Amino acid sequence: MAVGEGFAGTLVPVAGITIGVGCAGIKVVGRRDLVIFELSPGSTVGAVFTQNAFCAAPVQLCKEHLATSQATRFLVVNTGNANAGTGQRGLDDARETCTRLAAQKSVDPEQVLPFSTGVIGEYLPMTALANGLPNALATLATDNWHDAAQGILTTDTRQKGGSRQFEFENETITVTGIAKGSGMIKPNMATMLAFIGTDAPIDQALLQSITEAATTASFNRITVDSDTSTNDACVVMATGKAQVKRVTSVEDPLYRYLLKTIKELMLSLAQQIIRDGEGASKFIEVRVEGALSVDEALAVAFSVADSPLFKTAMSASDANWGRILMAVGKSKIDQLDVNLIDVYLGDVKIVAGGERAQSYTEALGAAIVAEEEIIVRILLKRGDVDESVWTSDLSHEYVRINAEYRS
Amino acid sequence: MAVGEGFAGTLVPVAGITIGVGCAGIKVVGRRDLVIFELSPGSTVGAVFTQNAFCAAPVQLCKEHLATSQATRFLVVNTGNANAGTGQRGLDDARETCTRLAAQKSVDPEQVLPFSTGVIGEYLPMTALANGLPNALATLATDNWHDAAQGILTTDTRQKGGSRQFEFENETITVTGIAKGSGMIKPNMATMLAFIGTDAPIDQALLQSITEAATTASFNRITVDSDTSTNDACVVMATGKAQVKRVTSVEDPLYRYLLKTIKELMLSLAQQIIRDGEGASKFIEVRVEGALSVDEALAVAFSVADSPLFKTAMSASDANWGRILMAVGKSKIDQLDVNLIDVYLGDVKIVAGGERAQSYTEALGAAIVAEEEIIVRILLKRGDVDESVWTSDLSHEYVRINAEYRS
Repeated sequence: MAVGEGFAGTLVPVAGITIGVGCAGIKVVGRRDLVIFELSPGSTVGAVFTQNAFCAAPVQLCKEHLATSQATRFLVVNTGNANAGTGQRGLDDARETCTRLAAQKSVDPEQVLPFSTGVIGEYLPMTALANGLPNALATLATDNWHDAAQGILTTDTRQKGGSRQFEFENETITVTGIAKGSGMIKPNMATMLAFIGTDAPIDQALLQSITEAATTASFNRITVDSDTSTNDACVVMATGKAQVKRVTSVEDPLYRYLLKTIKELMLSLAQQIIRDGEGASKFIEVRVEGALSVDEALAVAFSVADSPLFKTAMSASDANWGRILMAVGKSKIDQLDVNLIDVYLGDVKIVAGGERAQSYTEALGAAIVAEEEIIVRILLKRGDVDESVWTSDLSHEYVRINAEYRS
Repeated sequence: MAVGEGFAGTLVPVAGITIGVGCAGIKVVGRRDLVIFELSPGSTVGAVFTQNAFCAAPVQLCKEHLATSQATRFLVVNTGNANAGTGQRGLDDARETCTRLAAQKSVDPEQVLPFSTGVIGEYLPMTALANGLPNALATLATDNWHDAAQGILTTDTRQKGGSRQFEFENETITVTGIAKGSGMIKPNMATMLAFIGTDAPIDQALLQSITEAATTASFNRITVDSDTSTNDACVVMATGKAQVKRVTSVEDPLYRYLLKTIKELMLSLAQQIIRDGEGASKFIEVRVEGALSVDEALAVAFSVADSPLFKTAMSASDANWGRILMAVGKSKIDQLDVNLIDVYLGDVKIVAGGERAQSYTEALGAAIVAEEEIIVRILLKRGDVDESVWTSDLSHEYVRINAEYRS
């Protein structure tokens, strides 16, 4: 299941980034499961990773390599195996993957970043992976973004991607990105996997700050099942091939344009993940208005978006406002005055001052929740902060997928 | 669905407590939906209530009456309607219920405590309730505990109850209790509804401290779906009919016996709730050992017990230890060293030092999780605090129940 149309647009190549895609047979023979990004020399990279304490071996090695080298040249991504919960051998395997690729392309191992997604707790099939590397490298080309978007998927039912372009100093700046993720989705500083490229020239520290700010406003605002992956990673690659002045300060106008564009693209990718959430039949925005702080708004929004009872009601197209109030009430907000709260489903006011609105009828609510896309607005009337998070429903299909799939 | 055998023991009457049970037709005609407890004069009452900010009208009124009067004489419980999210009219309705009962029994309204459970957001059908009161009062008798256990149920598939007796100063002290709850279960200072009676004589403040301590160690250690009810309430009633010295200090030996016995009974009731959790096909204990503090142990235990991915794996009898590590890792414990952690399923070591135990085989794990009752032990090796919580699995049946039932 999935909600609405999948991404069907064009993924515009980014000058300075070539992509190779191969079938290494890591879990399933003949399936695209190995993706390699090559960045031109001089590229910068921003990256954020899962906050899960059980972070996977490739996440640990990415952090180590980024701390050692500012000259990343390759990203290597495998699906079918997360290389998580694999201890020292998992780290050794990730390191060997980087070393093998580095040897074939005459770079240092620290210039290679490894990523894995798939089953937790099994060792990487190193022979298959090693044999797959030359085949994937042989396909390196600028126009492989669509194949890469396919090649990084696991339980996803469709590709996630997008491109944005804008003019700056008579030059066209391109930002293109792809993502994967469907279950174990409540990112904390990143989502499952997202790779975004731009030809803009920008210093590493500034690209890192854009990566963090954009992730916070996008991938960190979604939840499918409240579970945070061990392998989350989001990487922004900037090749500097566009012939414009390099961004060296947050005061540079291009910094603002890049931040806005990358944030927009990440939000689109994050929402595509929710539309393809495991078992999703609804795409739901939970918007909290009038909070005292961002933390407070997000606490209330996630308390609703993560509530199994709210999510099953949405799955059944049941405008069950009692469960919304229950979830708001359990969010542990200090001194919450429930008699102030209004709740809207779409444009229909369902709760006024903490109880059912006089104008509300079941028929009005039923019409809203029968739709595939639902906006729940919760007005706290405490302050002036508004925040949204996005989620999917909890369906029979979710249980079926996760009872059958070994993640 | 439910796990194991339901409660089939005897509920021993408590001297000084009579119970009336009626069919008021609040939601379904002919179903037991009204339960009244009458306490003999001089009884004391301890009580804890939901921490959900959206607490129901009867919860608000209970707190008000307990603050006004130390001489509670009646508890009146209706099912089929939670009287939550009903604003001022809900409070008025709860107050009128108490006033009507008080008039018929010549007590003050403040000596009556009201309780409701069922659908959120609908007004109480006051005519049906008012007509039902005399009928229920006409059945007041000491041996109606079983009928009361039946009369307080909603989505529950079976009764929860228990009795404990012990000898003290040549007198038999009796403790008998009942509870209800199946979904919207992650109690926070109480569970859905629990009523426990004893004939021990004890001062109100000491009974309150026993109520709080026993609740913390029992109902606050369970979760079905991580959702906290708006109507949780747990009441312990002590009639003082037993001919022993009144408990007036925590130093009195009877205080310790009562605390131990009530704690045991509450834990049994709490576990009965989990065995009858919505859609439950597994009864799971998540035990965290070697934590630095109780809070830390509970944070890890609930992170696992509330994880939808862990719960669907259990539903499918899948010994998916990767999801256990994931859930431990997302629990936000400061400075967690994952390389120390061992995990056991029953007696089988599945994780050693943060990765799969060398001795572990899929067959060993599969045999454990095929059982209806599963113990997951997580050894943090940070300190000396051990804590357990209890939960059920996330099944197709859970989704079906909550898509169909308007709670």
